[in-house]
Amino acid sequence: MNIPLTEIINFLSNDLLEIKGENADKIVIKYLKEPAEVDEFTLDWINPAKENKQQIAEDTNAKAILVDEEIAYSEIIKTQGKTLIVVKNPKFAIAQIANEFFVEKITPQIHPTASIHSKAKIGKNVFIGPNCIIGNCTIGNNVTIEGNNYIYDRVDIGNHVEIHAGAIIGSEAHNFVEDENGCKIKFPHLGKTIIGNHVVVGANSVISRGVLSDTIIGDNTKIAQLVVIGANNVIHENCAIRANAMTSGSVAINKNSIIAPSVTIRNQKTIGENCFIGMGAVVTKDVPDGETWIGNPARKLR
Amino acid sequence: MNIPLTEIINFLSNDLLEIKGENADKIVIKYLKEPAEVDEFTLDWINPAKENKQQIAEDTNAKAILVDEEIAYSEIIKTQGKTLIVVKNPKFAIAQIANEFFVEKITPQIHPTASIHSKAKIGKNVFIGPNCIIGNCTIGNNVTIEGNNYIYDRVDIGNHVEIHAGAIIGSEAHNFVEDENGCKIKFPHLGKTIIGNHVVVGANSVISRGVLSDTIIGDNTKIAQLVVIGANNVIHENCAIRANAMTSGSVAINKNSIIAPSVTIRNQKTIGENCFIGMGAVVTKDVPDGETWIGNPARKLR
Amino acid sequence: MNIPLTEIINFLSNDLLEIKGENADKIVIKYLKEPAEVDEFTLDWINPAKENKQQIAEDTNAKAILVDEEIAYSEIIKTQGKTLIVVKNPKFAIAQIANEFFVEKITPQIHPTASIHSKAKIGKNVFIGPNCIIGNCTIGNNVTIEGNNYIYDRVDIGNHVEIHAGAIIGSEAHNFVEDENGCKIKFPHLGKTIIGNHVVVGANSVISRGVLSDTIIGDNTKIAQLVVIGANNVIHENCAIRANAMTSGSVAINKNSIIAPSVTIRNQKTIGENCFIGMGAVVTKDVPDGETWIGNPARKLR
Repeated sequence: MNIPLTEIINFLSNDLLEIKGENADKIVIKYLKEPAEVDEFTLDWINPAKENKQQIAEDTNAKAILVDEEIAYSEIIKTQGKTLIVVKNPKFAIAQIANEFFVEKITPQIHPTASIHSKAKIGKNVFIGPNCIIGNCTIGNNVTIEGNNYIYDRVDIGNHVEIHAGAIIGSEAHNFVEDENGCKIKFPHLGKTIIGNHVVVGANSVISRGVLSDTIIGDNTKIAQLVVIGANNVIHENCAIRANAMTSGSVAINKNSIIAPSVTIRNQKTIGENCFIGMGAVVTKDVPDGETWIGNPARKLR
Repeated sequence: MNIPLTEIINFLSNDLLEIKGENADKIVIKYLKEPAEVDEFTLDWINPAKENKQQIAEDTNAKAILVDEEIAYSEIIKTQGKTLIVVKNPKFAIAQIANEFFVEKITPQIHPTASIHSKAKIGKNVFIGPNCIIGNCTIGNNVTIEGNNYIYDRVDIGNHVEIHAGAIIGSEAHNFVEDENGCKIKFPHLGKTIIGNHVVVGANSVISRGVLSDTIIGDNTKIAQLVVIGANNVIHENCAIRANAMTSGSVAINKNSIIAPSVTIRNQKTIGENCFIGMGAVVTKDVPDGETWIGNPARKLR
Repeated sequence: MNIPLTEIINFLSNDLLEIKGENADKIVIKYLKEPAEVDEFTLDWINPAKENKQQIAEDTNAKAILVDEEIAYSEIIKTQGKTLIVVKNPKFAIAQIANEFFVEKITPQIHPTASIHSKAKIGKNVFIGPNCIIGNCTIGNNVTIEGNNYIYDRVDIGNHVEIHAGAIIGSEAHNFVEDENGCKIKFPHLGKTIIGNHVVVGANSVISRGVLSDTIIGDNTKIAQLVVIGANNVIHENCAIRANAMTSGSVAINKNSIIAPSVTIRNQKTIGENCFIGMGAVVTKDVPDGETWIGNPARKLR
């Protein structure tokens, strides 16, 4: 891959503040790399949160560096012939560049091996990969369902949603009623599963559908791999549910909260806004807004 | 959906104790709903365990209510024109009604994309969904295997079993022997996997087959989503294994026990009858009959 | 199955130290069994680690027994007409015999329902089962990919690798960058996923690909079921990652370490060589070589 640096600079447009250096139009970018592996064909960037940012810019082997305004175009950098591309947030800019230039675009298609319900409503620019089973559901625009997925009936999927391989949306959770002999009969799941816009569901994760109400995943919430979301959960926008986490039935998680890996949350419990639930925590109580809880059982971190 | 209430009442037959009210033959039911959303077309029910049951019956917007004998046909209820359908256990009755009237019946079929071993023995009224891989195994009557499942060789599945999408039955667990250099070679799993009657296996769960003996899941045991059952486990009847739980090799769980979400059980350990192992517990010892254990490591709850 | 004992003895060749008893050529072996079920047609073996080995050899119903040098050909054993097959390590020998004589050999094939990328490079003696989705990747020789697997682009798989049903190799983990409004955009995973030789990946497990560097699984490492391996992990050779364990991003695990079931490891942490991380441990710090850590949060076991 050979990308003229000028092409990348054009792409940044509004986010670009300034170019420092003379060589932008001579530089060709081949790849992004980990700091230890950066060379002259790498587009490097400096995390605004780092200390010694100036030092890092002077030490890197890269010729082109995305930086924030705090990094000076020093004599050393000038002598090295480096080009500084000044943006508000280099970390965000590099992610945008990575998505634009370094990821193979997926061509929308419905793979011939997918089984699609005759009443399913499917939007524009949708990719449905091999062996997907798509029930009587609604899928928005610009959705990717990678492959080996099972999307049950009564699932609504918004726009710009990404569902990784093997993930299952809308299956029944564990909900049984016992008769006088203790014999379990299933209380069926009659609700829906509603997935907002810009949601990501990781590989082999499972989202349960609702029993009488609906399971709802809010816009921009990102669910990692091997996660279980219980029935009737309402997960608001912009949450992160990390790998191997599990929520029981009727859990609510308010916006901007982070559920770290391997967390377990008891049924009926509510997690507030902007909470952080630490790795492996077992949450048995409601967690108020803005708090961090850790441990088994989980307690507020002071 | 428009279901005459009389049709539902007829279905209850033996479980029905009494009808109180004059309007049963004028009421049409459209759906079941969460309490907050109940309207005149909802069949409502009142959980026998609730307090203020009389109050709930008088407050609901529903016209038809499944109740137990403790709820009186009060003047208020009479004035509201409501109909009380008195049954022994309204919670159980509503589950039966939900299954009968509100769930789309699955038509038995073997999907053309399923790969079935030529020697597999498959019973009557069996549904095998898309992309299922069915080994040299035995499947009873009235079994549903939803889709994207892998059923290995030497699996025996009973009657009335439900296997949700992506679940895997009979794979090899982790069982290696080391030579003098620490090099691991696999001890192969030569046993069977035996699934009883009325078992449910949740989405993307994995049940390992036995090494020299068999892995056995007892009648009426319900396994939730993303569960791992280890090799040589003997899980007796009527147990519940909740989502994200994990049992190591040669675990025994006796009847009527509940393994809460995200529990982990050490190999060779035995859980007694009627035990409750709490969410996220890490069980490293045998648990006697009737006890509740919680925590990491798990200890008896006093 | 009827296997002349002499055939098994010939297979052992170099590992065989001595035969004690006169009847080896009259014995026929039908199966391997758990101790409680051993009969005259069973090939039995005695674990070198057991106490009372002599007693066990005298008590077993088997006629043929794999033993180490410490077990004597006593008068009782002689009278019973038993044959002792003396090897260095009976436990290792029985595993080799099980693999050779009691496991159905898999015939290499690419199942017609598998979807294979046109540029995928596939070695010799490879089995790719039904509904596998194989991206633009490299697969070595003597590899088994059982079925319903998704192998993404940029995955390198070595030789003698076994991937059980539903496992996913090379999916994206959770890696997002936030803009000034807290809106998450994905930092794409541009790295590779490199699987060494003699690796086993259990059913429904997920191995994430790297972001800028690669995710690497070393030779002879065995990963069990429903495991998540995070992006950029470097797991060295001969490790065991047990069921339901989870590693976050950029974790390193050095050689010969054992990660017990349901362990969670924080991102950027390093586990030394020859470590043992106990069941359900939540590791938030680096673990030095040779140590055992347990608990939530994990601490060194003293």
